[in-house]
Amino acid sequence: MLQGPASQPQIDIATPIARELNAVLDVFDRELASDLPFVNRLTQQVRNYRGKLLRPKLLLLAGRASGELTHDHVVLAAVVEMVHMATLVHDDVLDEADMRRRHDTVNRLVGNEGAVMLGDFLISHAYHLCSSLSSTFASRRIAAVTNTVCEGELLQIENRGNILLSEETYFDIIRRKTAALTAVCCEMGAVASGADDETIAALTRYGADLGVAFQIVDDLLDLTATEHETGKSVGRDAEMGKPTLPVIRFLAGASAADREAMIAALTHPTPDTPATLRSMLRGSDAIEQAFDAAASYVTSATAAIAPLPDSDAKASLIAAAEFVLARRQ
Amino acid sequence: MLQGPASQPQIDIATPIARELNAVLDVFDRELASDLPFVNRLTQQVRNYRGKLLRPKLLLLAGRASGELTHDHVVLAAVVEMVHMATLVHDDVLDEADMRRRHDTVNRLVGNEGAVMLGDFLISHAYHLCSSLSSTFASRRIAAVTNTVCEGELLQIENRGNILLSEETYFDIIRRKTAALTAVCCEMGAVASGADDETIAALTRYGADLGVAFQIVDDLLDLTATEHETGKSVGRDAEMGKPTLPVIRFLAGASAADREAMIAALTHPTPDTPATLRSMLRGSDAIEQAFDAAASYVTSATAAIAPLPDSDAKASLIAAAEFVLARRQ
Repeated sequence: MLQGPASQPQIDIATPIARELNAVLDVFDRELASDLPFVNRLTQQVRNYRGKLLRPKLLLLAGRASGELTHDHVVLAAVVEMVHMATLVHDDVLDEADMRRRHDTVNRLVGNEGAVMLGDFLISHAYHLCSSLSSTFASRRIAAVTNTVCEGELLQIENRGNILLSEETYFDIIRRKTAALTAVCCEMGAVASGADDETIAALTRYGADLGVAFQIVDDLLDLTATEHETGKSVGRDAEMGKPTLPVIRFLAGASAADREAMIAALTHPTPDTPATLRSMLRGSDAIEQAFDAAASYVTSATAAIAPLPDSDAKASLIAAAEFVLARRQ
Repeated sequence: MLQGPASQPQIDIATPIARELNAVLDVFDRELASDLPFVNRLTQQVRNYRGKLLRPKLLLLAGRASGELTHDHVVLAAVVEMVHMATLVHDDVLDEADMRRRHDTVNRLVGNEGAVMLGDFLISHAYHLCSSLSSTFASRRIAAVTNTVCEGELLQIENRGNILLSEETYFDIIRRKTAALTAVCCEMGAVASGADDETIAALTRYGADLGVAFQIVDDLLDLTATEHETGKSVGRDAEMGKPTLPVIRFLAGASAADREAMIAALTHPTPDTPATLRSMLRGSDAIEQAFDAAASYVTSATAAIAPLPDSDAKASLIAAAEFVLARRQ
């Protein structure tokens, strides 16, 4: 098994792509500039959401690990970040329906209307930027993956309140809503470098497995971490009736009484539900099981790119995968 | 001045493009088919929204009026309808509307979460379908116009509750949110037919002017029509603090007392506000003024395409413009 918290990577995974990453932010900002001051104020707010820039980094690192970086890589990296920002803005609208977030989201600042439309504005500009490339390949892949992401979100909405969500459907949801995009980041990075089919497939597989691991850990943190640790609201999945892997594993292995107690807690969620769940889960090995599942996806991700020639970029990709697990602390 | 209600056109404007219009619906349905039954149920609901198919008709008629129709026209017509449907679904979330074309809105059926995500799904598929064409021209134009539509919506949101909205900003909003798309429909129809620059410009101008007229009348109907007549929620603009052309013209021409009464009604909207506004507006010529403004855009639209060679398609375009005014009854 891969190492846990103690192994937090010491390298800065962005070192091999530092110059291009700066260029990505320039392209991102130029694409969104509007003649309307109100629109510029809103997109400025979105810039505050910028976190780890995981998706642009994956795209650039995949490109670097399989060839030379070009301006197309920079544009594509800005596109995937814009797609991701759009999903964040719309996710915040979705979550606000039942609950107020405790920090300034776009919907908090300008209402749901502004947030819905700003998300649309971001997605529109992502496609616009993408269509500026000479080949239609990227536009096709980006539109195909956003189709899949939306299906994942809709599948999740359909299953909201489905306490007995199957593990199969849970994985179907996270593959579509999260892993599809990280996979396409790595795929497009490799394609834009002119990589061969085998290398493209290896990096795509890496991106898909990393995405699954990332989402499992993200869901875990929502159950186990504090708001201070994650910088965002926690406990929302339980409050919104979204069972995640630890809950699914707990229900699969629990005694009849524990199972009943967990189902009761999930069926009528209150603000106390996350704390109740936490204490029930900590009395079982369900959290460890979910973490191990994430770790096995990280193992699979790094194994997928093992055949690639060694490079700083490849080392960064491996470190990025391991960092997914280190987030857990 | 163009004739009003009495002149409701007797021709079916779709006759010259009937076959292609059926093909558009097939392409539309095939593009949206999902492996997820829940998604298919939602897109089925969206199909109930289908009204006049104005945008696909404009695109096909512009293509026919300037050359031969191709499969690209059919695909593009499905794309613009999908874009339009996405804006309807998100508009209903923004407006908290319950009814559209005599059917429950998506937000009413599955909540705002489902409606936001279904709108995203539609826009994603619009780009996906568009990117299936061999040239990148359409993808660029579609993404550029959706940028503009979003800006128009954001400008409108910024001005929500701005009772003293200027006529200039009102026109800026409707040019971006409505006329930009009808203009691009006509432009892309002509471009896909291989029309010369002059013809493309004439049809683009026609589409832009028709779009402005259409939105003025749509806003008028929200003030003057009943839910039964329009098949959708009415009075929403006044309730949502969105002054439209009749209100702007009324405020510009009213006595100080009438002006004050109108501003008071708009400042604290209640479910009775639409009725109050209606009765105040009917005591002035503001509704006629707004209708005349729409009529002048229709005149300009038909004048723009006068130089085109006569054809059934051109006759349909002229009838379509006149029909915008006939909706008023």
